[in-house]
Amino acid sequence: MQETILFPVPQGFRTFVTNLGIRDTTDDFSCVVSEVKCTAAGVFTQSRFVGPSVTISRRHIENGQAQAIATISKNANVANGAVGLADAEEVIALISAETGIAIDNILLASTGLIGHRYPMENIRKGLSNIKQQFLPADFSAIARAIMTTDTVSKLFVRQVGKATLVGVAKGVGMIEPNMATLLTYFFTDAAIPSDRLRPMFRTVIDKTFNCLSIDTDTSTSDTAIILANSLAGEVNEEEFTHALEDIARNLVYMIARDGEGSTKVIEVTVDQAATYAQAKRVAKAIVNSPLVKTAIHGADPNWGRVAMAIGKCSDDTDIDQQRVVIRFGNLQVYPSEPKPDILDRLKAIMADEKVGVHVSLNTGKASATVWGCALSEGYVKLNSQYST
Amino acid sequence: MQETILFPVPQGFRTFVTNLGIRDTTDDFSCVVSEVKCTAAGVFTQSRFVGPSVTISRRHIENGQAQAIATISKNANVANGAVGLADAEEVIALISAETGIAIDNILLASTGLIGHRYPMENIRKGLSNIKQQFLPADFSAIARAIMTTDTVSKLFVRQVGKATLVGVAKGVGMIEPNMATLLTYFFTDAAIPSDRLRPMFRTVIDKTFNCLSIDTDTSTSDTAIILANSLAGEVNEEEFTHALEDIARNLVYMIARDGEGSTKVIEVTVDQAATYAQAKRVAKAIVNSPLVKTAIHGADPNWGRVAMAIGKCSDDTDIDQQRVVIRFGNLQVYPSEPKPDILDRLKAIMADEKVGVHVSLNTGKASATVWGCALSEGYVKLNSQYST
Repeated sequence: MQETILFPVPQGFRTFVTNLGIRDTTDDFSCVVSEVKCTAAGVFTQSRFVGPSVTISRRHIENGQAQAIATISKNANVANGAVGLADAEEVIALISAETGIAIDNILLASTGLIGHRYPMENIRKGLSNIKQQFLPADFSAIARAIMTTDTVSKLFVRQVGKATLVGVAKGVGMIEPNMATLLTYFFTDAAIPSDRLRPMFRTVIDKTFNCLSIDTDTSTSDTAIILANSLAGEVNEEEFTHALEDIARNLVYMIARDGEGSTKVIEVTVDQAATYAQAKRVAKAIVNSPLVKTAIHGADPNWGRVAMAIGKCSDDTDIDQQRVVIRFGNLQVYPSEPKPDILDRLKAIMADEKVGVHVSLNTGKASATVWGCALSEGYVKLNSQYST
Repeated sequence: MQETILFPVPQGFRTFVTNLGIRDTTDDFSCVVSEVKCTAAGVFTQSRFVGPSVTISRRHIENGQAQAIATISKNANVANGAVGLADAEEVIALISAETGIAIDNILLASTGLIGHRYPMENIRKGLSNIKQQFLPADFSAIARAIMTTDTVSKLFVRQVGKATLVGVAKGVGMIEPNMATLLTYFFTDAAIPSDRLRPMFRTVIDKTFNCLSIDTDTSTSDTAIILANSLAGEVNEEEFTHALEDIARNLVYMIARDGEGSTKVIEVTVDQAATYAQAKRVAKAIVNSPLVKTAIHGADPNWGRVAMAIGKCSDDTDIDQQRVVIRFGNLQVYPSEPKPDILDRLKAIMADEKVGVHVSLNTGKASATVWGCALSEGYVKLNSQYST
């Protein structure tokens, strides 16, 4: 259990959290509503196997407005066909009936097992007469209720002028967001017009959540949403963007730290690249290599695996191994004159809780940083018995 | 130790195997020479971090001729710069001096740790006065001497008319061949002209070794070579291609079975695809998904992860989840009416030593089959302490 820490919250939000008996007895339903309609932006998974939560939320947020986000955890409601769609629509209708919020202003996210139906009887029972149970916003409870295999909840807050911005996230496996992310929500009382909120949000998500990979497996349910209810008035947008990116980066770091079986965070920076896309592609090849991930797990100073991972980017024919530089922390390992203690020094660097890999390609001036985590026996153990 | 089995060998080859003290006391140097020059074809890694063995062999085989293949195992001689190139050239010069074979007819392959120099003193000593030590071909010894972390040697033989074809391979980690493969050699006494041997060899490698992935990590040293010395005369080429593909497929299966930490072979077939490339892309997404690999390791009937892996192919916008069919063995799991025993039946299928996944995309008529293996704690254990 984490300590409760008091922190400022944005005005005008209320929350409700409960157990609907989706899979066990922990909180598995949560809902955040705003007293007034919000400017809203969302980024969703590009999976070809999305569930109805994503389909519906994508449609409801299209006009740049929303007033509530509900989340069901422990069941993704994915690959359930027409029945799954009808179930999701019923959940939204139940919430609308209780809260009085129009159906098309309610967003739904769902995360957990794929291919299993919701226990609809439990849900109908659990969502009746909940109107009075929405309390002044408790975002800590929201951060906990959206968890599945997460071991810690993930929440950060920043103040921007008179406004407050809070961000929460969940997700530790099936994570290589692709133009979207796991589940992450941002709530603010700042006033930001929709036409500026959308590009700002997409840019921040691209630089943070889309640079994260736990295990290369893109979820069917990735959803990132921001709700801005404007109750605190206008803010300096540059300052707001900075706060948003700061929170997003902190959430990403926490997710990598809490990645399934994660023993260490890996931060890979590739610079002097021809393009941002090349820098990110090479950085992802390194952070996703199971051989790099296991070597870092064991603090095994096998830096040659980073060379291998760079080499995998075989379409990048401008990469010339004679011009590449590889460092761990500040230690240059390639090219390198043989030094007797280099492997010992590398081993010490790799024993840290956070291991930084820094590659200069010498193909141009672009750079990118991505995050991931070590691969341990714990990942295999957890995921070989997940559904049973 | 495997039993020695007598099998026919192609005429005119001689072999030599020894320990040069590269890393331990097991055989780490092997050489196959032909009495006469051979027609030769090779396919090599596309890595941007190839070692000098690949660079030199690619150049030597370009004219479609070769007479010897030497292999050093336990050290890849990769990422060693100009010194590594000079070392590789010296090894070839030593072999040429002993065997009398011209330098540009000698091919070299090297496999093992990256970023470590050869122990050249040991090599110079070990390769002096070896001329008399070449014996009538012992391909079993070759198959054993090229091993690194392999637990069994891999060798298959077929007869085609009066000719014999033998194939060997090594490799159990850092394996997702990209237009090439790990180390695999084929020797035959059939007579096949170079202009027909090359396309035949490339086609077979593409359908077999290039459809294999142990861990998505493309090696810097992948090399596939065939030497045909023509001593048995011409053969029916269709029959020969069939034998070549048959051996290659068997070697691939053995490699997947012996994959690092492998507990099961996974065979994924994707059919009714728009193109071969799409079928292979989706099949690779499934066979490389760590969540699919761990579920199969634990026989956890979490078939939804196959849906997730198909969904990851987000550029394949013609894939419609409503038209996709997913089967394990003969059991259709999606779409599927709820059946009480379906998960038990799936669990039983997933407990087999070989698990077949069969996906129909309904986007066209193309198909592809790929091979991989389960991901177990053993892979993590082995690879977190490999270099030390």
